[in-house]
Amino acid sequence: MIGVGVIGYGYWGPNLVRSFASTPGVEVRAVADRRPERLAVAHTAYPEVRLAEDARDLIEDPAIDAVVIATSASSHGELALAGVEAGKHVLVEKPLAETSDDAARLVEAAARRQRALMVDHTFVYTSAVQEIREIVASGAVGGILLHDAVRTSLHRFHPETGVLWDLAVHDLAIIDHLVADAPAAVSATGLSIEPGAPPDIVHVTLLFGERRIAHVQANWLSAVKLRRTVIGGECGTIVYDDLDPLEKVKVYECSPALARDAASIEALRVDFRAGRMWAPRLQVGEALRVMAAHFIECVETGCRPRTDGESGLRVVRWLEAAQLSLSRRGEPVRLS
Amino acid sequence: MIGVGVIGYGYWGPNLVRSFASTPGVEVRAVADRRPERLAVAHTAYPEVRLAEDARDLIEDPAIDAVVIATSASSHGELALAGVEAGKHVLVEKPLAETSDDAARLVEAAARRQRALMVDHTFVYTSAVQEIREIVASGAVGGILLHDAVRTSLHRFHPETGVLWDLAVHDLAIIDHLVADAPAAVSATGLSIEPGAPPDIVHVTLLFGERRIAHVQANWLSAVKLRRTVIGGECGTIVYDDLDPLEKVKVYECSPALARDAASIEALRVDFRAGRMWAPRLQVGEALRVMAAHFIECVETGCRPRTDGESGLRVVRWLEAAQLSLSRRGEPVRLS
Amino acid sequence: MIGVGVIGYGYWGPNLVRSFASTPGVEVRAVADRRPERLAVAHTAYPEVRLAEDARDLIEDPAIDAVVIATSASSHGELALAGVEAGKHVLVEKPLAETSDDAARLVEAAARRQRALMVDHTFVYTSAVQEIREIVASGAVGGILLHDAVRTSLHRFHPETGVLWDLAVHDLAIIDHLVADAPAAVSATGLSIEPGAPPDIVHVTLLFGERRIAHVQANWLSAVKLRRTVIGGECGTIVYDDLDPLEKVKVYECSPALARDAASIEALRVDFRAGRMWAPRLQVGEALRVMAAHFIECVETGCRPRTDGESGLRVVRWLEAAQLSLSRRGEPVRLS
Amino acid sequence: MIGVGVIGYGYWGPNLVRSFASTPGVEVRAVADRRPERLAVAHTAYPEVRLAEDARDLIEDPAIDAVVIATSASSHGELALAGVEAGKHVLVEKPLAETSDDAARLVEAAARRQRALMVDHTFVYTSAVQEIREIVASGAVGGILLHDAVRTSLHRFHPETGVLWDLAVHDLAIIDHLVADAPAAVSATGLSIEPGAPPDIVHVTLLFGERRIAHVQANWLSAVKLRRTVIGGECGTIVYDDLDPLEKVKVYECSPALARDAASIEALRVDFRAGRMWAPRLQVGEALRVMAAHFIECVETGCRPRTDGESGLRVVRWLEAAQLSLSRRGEPVRLS
Repeated sequence: MIGVGVIGYGYWGPNLVRSFASTPGVEVRAVADRRPERLAVAHTAYPEVRLAEDARDLIEDPAIDAVVIATSASSHGELALAGVEAGKHVLVEKPLAETSDDAARLVEAAARRQRALMVDHTFVYTSAVQEIREIVASGAVGGILLHDAVRTSLHRFHPETGVLWDLAVHDLAIIDHLVADAPAAVSATGLSIEPGAPPDIVHVTLLFGERRIAHVQANWLSAVKLRRTVIGGECGTIVYDDLDPLEKVKVYECSPALARDAASIEALRVDFRAGRMWAPRLQVGEALRVMAAHFIECVETGCRPRTDGESGLRVVRWLEAAQLSLSRRGEPVRLS
Repeated sequence: MIGVGVIGYGYWGPNLVRSFASTPGVEVRAVADRRPERLAVAHTAYPEVRLAEDARDLIEDPAIDAVVIATSASSHGELALAGVEAGKHVLVEKPLAETSDDAARLVEAAARRQRALMVDHTFVYTSAVQEIREIVASGAVGGILLHDAVRTSLHRFHPETGVLWDLAVHDLAIIDHLVADAPAAVSATGLSIEPGAPPDIVHVTLLFGERRIAHVQANWLSAVKLRRTVIGGECGTIVYDDLDPLEKVKVYECSPALARDAASIEALRVDFRAGRMWAPRLQVGEALRVMAAHFIECVETGCRPRTDGESGLRVVRWLEAAQLSLSRRGEPVRLS
Repeated sequence: MIGVGVIGYGYWGPNLVRSFASTPGVEVRAVADRRPERLAVAHTAYPEVRLAEDARDLIEDPAIDAVVIATSASSHGELALAGVEAGKHVLVEKPLAETSDDAARLVEAAARRQRALMVDHTFVYTSAVQEIREIVASGAVGGILLHDAVRTSLHRFHPETGVLWDLAVHDLAIIDHLVADAPAAVSATGLSIEPGAPPDIVHVTLLFGERRIAHVQANWLSAVKLRRTVIGGECGTIVYDDLDPLEKVKVYECSPALARDAASIEALRVDFRAGRMWAPRLQVGEALRVMAAHFIECVETGCRPRTDGESGLRVVRWLEAAQLSLSRRGEPVRLS
Repeated sequence: MIGVGVIGYGYWGPNLVRSFASTPGVEVRAVADRRPERLAVAHTAYPEVRLAEDARDLIEDPAIDAVVIATSASSHGELALAGVEAGKHVLVEKPLAETSDDAARLVEAAARRQRALMVDHTFVYTSAVQEIREIVASGAVGGILLHDAVRTSLHRFHPETGVLWDLAVHDLAIIDHLVADAPAAVSATGLSIEPGAPPDIVHVTLLFGERRIAHVQANWLSAVKLRRTVIGGECGTIVYDDLDPLEKVKVYECSPALARDAASIEALRVDFRAGRMWAPRLQVGEALRVMAAHFIECVETGCRPRTDGESGLRVVRWLEAAQLSLSRRGEPVRLS
């Protein structure tokens, strides 16, 4: 039985507690939050769980094997490092840390202490993204030339953080999961409705070598929610619409035999597709539970998390570079 | 009766001849093309139309009041200028010219000679774009913060020109039509599948002052055709999907009264829309005929074309700036 | 505080317990099920709730004010009658009873004992159906001429009951809720994949007087789930797609001014819509909770449930008539 | 060179003339219409075509090998018979004739005179329906259990004929083409907005033996155009939406391996599909041209038209039976 402690019981914390509480082989033993009223809410739902106002109490508790951090982003780095140094396995809400320096320190410490370090890039654990990864790996659409994501939401939920760190991060994490190589530079542009405040709309381009480009648009000033990604391969296109209940993932094939003669090429002017389309059946299941189970499996077996500290660090580096480029109106920022 | 002559009878020329031939008050009197086999095709369809291998013959023909230029882009500037200087009204396929210098010279000459100069930005004449312009003008969605367009096609139709000048130009023309103010800078990134060739995928960002950003993605390596535009206003979002036969234009309203209390804001996390949606009924009709009729109207009445030389010039300037920025991996290029 | 007891803890019972447990002013005090293993499951989730293998124990318990019946359909009538006769308020899963005689007896007893009798026609409590009812009541689409519903599912969940009583019942309940007048006759056809077994595909037509017709297709042999309803009014059409997360309810208006001249009528041949479309924003919320809260409100205030015993009885009568017509290959069966 | 004469130059006639005029090996030699103003329209478009006010002139013209009849339905039988008896090959607009007696007489005469007799069931010649036929023939979805079609339009185009003969006929023709066996009975219900007039909304059920049922709903009082067909097979479902430009035909597979264990079955309650979906690429092309070319091919080679007189006769029999059943509120009418 693995003892889990959750720090932070605000918006996302209760979902994490619920997920771990229903994971076999796991016992949620403590919840920490500075706010007594949040602890009271936790107590009503889980009367037997230990409560703590000070996260340190939880981190030092020998009954806790793994610490889950769901506080606001500014404390991720410090709390996670304390957890790792106390010999705990650590799962951190995205982003892994507020700065790449903090994230790098965390990765180093986890390696040294041989503890599991994982970041909760939840979308990576959806059946849609897992399926897309398998389709890409199968070579069904050839090498990926383009990844283009649009994600909008209906409110400025964290104006102090900005839409880059709050929404765009999801798609950057998906790109990091799907694509093996590293971008060489980042160019980003955006808009803030309050002058000087973090952006509310961003366009982020990741420039990979000569044969790949990725682009993320995030916008939380929208009146309609959109979550559409187009992944363009050398011989096929994947369209992923997270809001489509029936056909979330569609694979448009192109017929290599097709575009030879002039008449076929002419037909492509007025046609809507170059070949057959198919949509895989996706597993029914909640990504958060899959993520929680995966973390526990890594704690138990020592396997490398799909969204390990390194991937968390890469995404933070991209976010930092995008932020810098944004302040320079799109000037590309090189990644070392 | 206005006499029209069409130069260039390749892919688009026949559509222009057909459109003008069915426009009341117009007679298509001559077609010019260097290729005798294309003239033969024209002759079969329109036995009474005069044919010319040399465009000069058509331009100097006193029976021709208006010259329509549908040759490849490289000759637009020269032929159009010759037409204007010969005292003809001129309609040019997009782009108006290959360089902004040529375009500017054309605009100056048309003003001096007091002739109608119009560029065939066809999408501007669709009922969808006209309706969007009216919705925006009505204030129904507030000031426009974001214009985000995706346009893909199924083949590299003009590899020598590149997708920027071939596809992205359509959305830049739409933006020019919908937005009154001028962008201050352009940042663009992209990808060519053949090293050194013009790009096959482009991302172009137009940076307006502090309260507006526009982005165009064009890609002709796709296995599925997509033509989706999202226009984000201060209090509503317009979604324009040109391939949707039923609901091409959707207006998502946000309820200003809505987002006051915490519970309403919390509901926006899991909701899909902030308010009511509505979709106007669009006029049935072919954009090309509307465009042709508008050109003739301007020839007859002296009215200023909706897509006049100035707008053609602006779009060419944006294309040039995007091309420069592309070569510098997204570095912003200022527009004077 | 109203004490609630739930009889039947199979597929739907746990959902009902959960819904009532989270309804303010309610305490779920007992759960009854003949199967000890189901009671064990209930005990784990709700340790403080009394358990009973015999439903009579629960019905006779003075701590129980309202009995909720979620057993298989064959026992609905008997258990509900026992509940009413014991002076309890009663909520019954659909269908209200297996025969209209049983249902009528139940309605009579509830009236005599002045107890709330309600049937759980859950779909009536969705925000989509409530919104449609308001749109119809507002006169926005004129008098309803046509109600056409298609509902498919992916498995023969209750082969012994058949798709008529299991799936079609939902749409009949929606029709009963939306339409004030009573059908004069029912004609039904269908197909059973096992000869002599209850049907797996049914088409049910409700014949109202001269100006209204309703049709329900239910099919649980489908490889794709569909839940589409078209409601045709005298001057507009409502399309309700329960699986569409964004636009579940769409209202297509027709422009009365439109169809006068020949050109406008001709345009309708090639057009896709007769006028504007709009889609209301729907309340986020679970229908089951709304239903539970409504039942409790009626228990407390004596108000008449939206899906009272009378409506449950009407729906059972339609189901019986459809069953008879089915056996006669569509011969209409009159309703008195 | 085959000489074609077209009788009737109203709404559909011009489309037929255009299609035959562009069919290789065909010359449209004459057009007949009682209305001089329609002949004048034909003359403008086709100055070289002979004109006739009396259809007899055209039928007796030795330069005409094949007669195409596009008059109103009431004269189909008589004109077609005259054509066949004059030794011409005959193509008739749907329906083949107004009564099954007329249709049967026509079939008999064409057989006796060994002339091609074909009915223009245009939708049969769409690439969508041809593809569906091939998918069904391939066994990809197993035996067809259910064919369910909805077709609405925006205006009562032929109130004197009614929606059954005007719209429902299309789907009956498609069913006749896709399904090899014959229905045993027809049950139909409907609604007329003017008392005593032909119906404006119809529901027609074709009852095949024990393992198949087909249903057609047609409605021309709609504010939105709908053309959706669901074809349910024993192991898969085809969804055909004629208005979807991208995915007109979708095949939903079911995984026979799937539904064995309880957990998989339980998953089907909340899932949206039982297996993979795929959508074939369809040929771009106009059904009317395909139809015209097919008729000419049958004239030249003596091959049996896909929509021959027999199929036209079957569809007329179904229409008659549906009409009778309608008048009896759904009472099934047996087909011999």
